[in-house]
Amino acid sequence: MQILEERIKKDGVVKEGGILKVDSFLNHQMDVDFFGELAKEFWRLYGACGVTKILTIEASGIGIACITAQLFHVPVIFAKKNKTKNIAGEVYKTKVESFTHGTVYDVVASKEFLRAEDRVLIIDDFLANGNALLGLLDLVRQAGAQLIGAGIVVEKAFQPGGNLVRGQGVRVEALARIRSMDEKNGLTFAP
Amino acid sequence: MQILEERIKKDGVVKEGGILKVDSFLNHQMDVDFFGELAKEFWRLYGACGVTKILTIEASGIGIACITAQLFHVPVIFAKKNKTKNIAGEVYKTKVESFTHGTVYDVVASKEFLRAEDRVLIIDDFLANGNALLGLLDLVRQAGAQLIGAGIVVEKAFQPGGNLVRGQGVRVEALARIRSMDEKNGLTFAP
Repeated sequence: MQILEERIKKDGVVKEGGILKVDSFLNHQMDVDFFGELAKEFWRLYGACGVTKILTIEASGIGIACITAQLFHVPVIFAKKNKTKNIAGEVYKTKVESFTHGTVYDVVASKEFLRAEDRVLIIDDFLANGNALLGLLDLVRQAGAQLIGAGIVVEKAFQPGGNLVRGQGVRVEALARIRSMDEKNGLTFAP
Repeated sequence: MQILEERIKKDGVVKEGGILKVDSFLNHQMDVDFFGELAKEFWRLYGACGVTKILTIEASGIGIACITAQLFHVPVIFAKKNKTKNIAGEVYKTKVESFTHGTVYDVVASKEFLRAEDRVLIIDDFLANGNALLGLLDLVRQAGAQLIGAGIVVEKAFQPGGNLVRGQGVRVEALARIRSMDEKNGLTFAP
């Protein structure tokens, strides 16, 4: 998606250790007017698929998931990283390894809101090693819900997550796919 | 706000320990079409105040903050509960005690995005003891930014947070204020 690639080139910063800092518009400060443009593209891709629920994971997926859900007129569920007192009752639970934090954590979603009759679109800001996405897929499978696919804002195509998940037969649409990046030469995009 | 009070009466569940479960529409599953109605009310209250930035805290404030920010056409910043590799550079930092989790954690916001020239509206889903809100106020003060006020979806008016913050001269607008609640008798609203 051209406006996204341009925005990443303009405002993204490549840091050592394979980190792309896009926190000026995507995952710390959030440009919600721009999110509206991204959401239209997710709607173009998935709008005819009968989505009944959008699933994301806290925290940085929530903003883009909510803006997207407005076009689909469906609720968002965000998977929570810890079980708190506020999620009573039964939950689906899976484990996710965090590249950013270097930890493994539990992710839960209430059984009440993720149901066998749902047609689920997963929305997230980043896809790299695929751990968060695999965790969300596992929650959808546990629920027996139908997975429509995943909509990702930025895929690091040089990391294995995208191929891993597509290899499972899952439709994964990324609005920008980064082919390569390094601190010195910046980044290039894959088609 | 009448439609919110009705929704809380219809879908909220009062649990022991002073917990109001509204996770079917507010803070786990999120009814974004309904959020659009709440956002209009925040716009009615604060739309003329020259807001340049909306500040919230992860995770459950992010959805309502983003939907609200669409009407203000300003970015959202969400304060992060842990400093991760993805927030490089300088941050404002404060401590917040969590009623829900029974822990104290650091909350950070990048100095790059919260600036002295900003006119900040804080948006959050809940106000009870006021700890999260006091933390956000502290971040705004550290930045030297101008605080416009706070927009809260649900205030537990029988807990001290609201009075504490209003007592500091801060404008706090809550769309629903719960006067009392218990498991047996349900809840009542304050005007």
